[in-house]
Amino acid sequence: MSVDREQQGLQKLREIAGEQATRPLGDWNAIAPDMHRYIVEFVAGDILSRPGLDAKSRQLATVAMLAALSHAPDEFKMHFAGALRLGWTREELVEVLLQTAVFAGFPAALNALKWAQEVLSTQDKS
Amino acid sequence: MSVDREQQGLQKLREIAGEQATRPLGDWNAIAPDMHRYIVEFVAGDILSRPGLDAKSRQLATVAMLAALSHAPDEFKMHFAGALRLGWTREELVEVLLQTAVFAGFPAALNALKWAQEVLSTQDKS
Amino acid sequence: MSVDREQQGLQKLREIAGEQATRPLGDWNAIAPDMHRYIVEFVAGDILSRPGLDAKSRQLATVAMLAALSHAPDEFKMHFAGALRLGWTREELVEVLLQTAVFAGFPAALNALKWAQEVLSTQDKS
Amino acid sequence: MSVDREQQGLQKLREIAGEQATRPLGDWNAIAPDMHRYIVEFVAGDILSRPGLDAKSRQLATVAMLAALSHAPDEFKMHFAGALRLGWTREELVEVLLQTAVFAGFPAALNALKWAQEVLSTQDKS
Amino acid sequence: MSVDREQQGLQKLREIAGEQATRPLGDWNAIAPDMHRYIVEFVAGDILSRPGLDAKSRQLATVAMLAALSHAPDEFKMHFAGALRLGWTREELVEVLLQTAVFAGFPAALNALKWAQEVLSTQDKS
Amino acid sequence: MSVDREQQGLQKLREIAGEQATRPLGDWNAIAPDMHRYIVEFVAGDILSRPGLDAKSRQLATVAMLAALSHAPDEFKMHFAGALRLGWTREELVEVLLQTAVFAGFPAALNALKWAQEVLSTQDKS
Repeated sequence: MSVDREQQGLQKLREIAGEQATRPLGDWNAIAPDMHRYIVEFVAGDILSRPGLDAKSRQLATVAMLAALSHAPDEFKMHFAGALRLGWTREELVEVLLQTAVFAGFPAALNALKWAQEVLSTQDKS
Repeated sequence: MSVDREQQGLQKLREIAGEQATRPLGDWNAIAPDMHRYIVEFVAGDILSRPGLDAKSRQLATVAMLAALSHAPDEFKMHFAGALRLGWTREELVEVLLQTAVFAGFPAALNALKWAQEVLSTQDKS
Repeated sequence: MSVDREQQGLQKLREIAGEQATRPLGDWNAIAPDMHRYIVEFVAGDILSRPGLDAKSRQLATVAMLAALSHAPDEFKMHFAGALRLGWTREELVEVLLQTAVFAGFPAALNALKWAQEVLSTQDKS
Repeated sequence: MSVDREQQGLQKLREIAGEQATRPLGDWNAIAPDMHRYIVEFVAGDILSRPGLDAKSRQLATVAMLAALSHAPDEFKMHFAGALRLGWTREELVEVLLQTAVFAGFPAALNALKWAQEVLSTQDKS
Repeated sequence: MSVDREQQGLQKLREIAGEQATRPLGDWNAIAPDMHRYIVEFVAGDILSRPGLDAKSRQLATVAMLAALSHAPDEFKMHFAGALRLGWTREELVEVLLQTAVFAGFPAALNALKWAQEVLSTQDKS
Repeated sequence: MSVDREQQGLQKLREIAGEQATRPLGDWNAIAPDMHRYIVEFVAGDILSRPGLDAKSRQLATVAMLAALSHAPDEFKMHFAGALRLGWTREELVEVLLQTAVFAGFPAALNALKWAQEVLSTQDKS
């Protein structure tokens, strides 16, 4: 394992997801232990850490993609929370989700709004 | 037709697509003349003109969505050119397209890079 | 807000979804209050109210689209119930869902049949 | 090969696509000769010939599905032409395509309108 | 109903899903009794029983498709269990799911890994 | 750049795509020079080179995924040719494409058959 890619990836995951990001998120870790390494080294270390775009803008693009694809509630919620952590307001993020209706249709936008509401109501309670 | 929504929408389309944006883009105008009106009034006038997110960030979200969906070369190219017009550099936009590989797969990322290259090579010639 | 578009949209939503249609369906209303307005004014008022196609046929197209896309159980169920309300029999609607297997694959068809069954079993109990 | 399913399927394909429907449409026939048989016997003979929904309504559902999926220009055009042959007007069909913007997004709707325009301009010339 | 296609299909379903495969899997059977027949005769009898590719390889392709499409948890789980029954090891199947990240994106791969983990933990308990 | 990952990836790409695989395939190389490196190091070096599944079976899964997704003709053709190079017969591969009709619908299967036919007719001429 490349130390640099691993360290870089773990730091990036902490930026996006806080301390729990350094642990594999899913139950799948038992059957696919290398998956977490690829997420750390490739997704977070290689791609999301690239310097050519600031982290806040990059996170907006992530939320936009996951809203448009509309097939991954867990990843959407993690990255939606990450976008709040990186400085976007909930009002700004809701704008992106409304805009999903234009490009991916209203049902995809409503899925994203429901998932966002679950993140926000959890945060409001804590 | 609501004058305000129409005026607002046309102004927004000019911001994104320049002067040619005030004309329907496709041959479909003959069979669906109302489509251009919905694009002007609803897409551009209602949604893309909303004040809660700056126009430049919003355009990044549009490019991210169309890259992830990977099914609309013409709309992707128009909005990719619009993102350049609104102030993103080509290097920053390429970052979003690379990132598409993570969330929608490498084939979707390569589609987007090919379409982006077509926009950029046309601009470099003119 | 345009009174005509709003009135037209609310009337159309009542045709499709009955009285509960005049309220926003999802918990997302707290974070995105304008979404319900766009559904009323644009989706229902502008598009679904257009006179060029009868409401019953239009609702069949809606069910067909949501079955093929296979990513929006809540919207599918609302519009499936709406198709029953607009005069389609459950046997006719099941035909559309079977046909989904041809164009979007058997898994999409089975998703749609499961969601339809949930609507029908709820109605049979009440 | 079941004679009944084959005869039923060929008759149904002729209803939708005219006389050319009895031949395999694509160059793929050389490598996958059984594909045409499945289209005749299963798609057209088993599913599209089912009596529970009239052929005209069924064809509207087909056009709606292919417009929403937005990934099959050739099949869309064949079935769009088939919908005209089965009695829908071009104005009615354009209504379905406009409605695609609501459920699958504007880019999918614009794809469908472009493909429909190609069918209609070919028919207007002949 | 063709006896040969039915017998062939039921035998194939038993190979993939064991004895419970001879019963319709879903609650939808009440509203769409013919669906089970199409699954037996067409899916299992016509297609999955074709001799041109060995059953084990064919099942790998099925798992790969359902992982990439990422919209059908129930069908994925049934066919993932079927792939184990046909002789693939869990380690080999996890390789296919990891590979899904490349072609359909990491969120689709994580969906598939979660569903696979549910199958495996159920089997480990029994 | 990790020498091992690069060397491993280039060797794997040569297995799949022959000698031309060591060059970036697309015009996008000018705008995204790092993309080729990620394809070599991550896609080919990390994932496709993993030892847990034999290369031939893995390539079948790749073809199955790209056929089901139906949005990337160039990548499909490259990997379809790669599957022939790794030892699958055209008859076996056509079986996978026919099977796509079951899981992703007939239009996706017909797209894949058309793309496969283009690969095969090019090979038959040379």
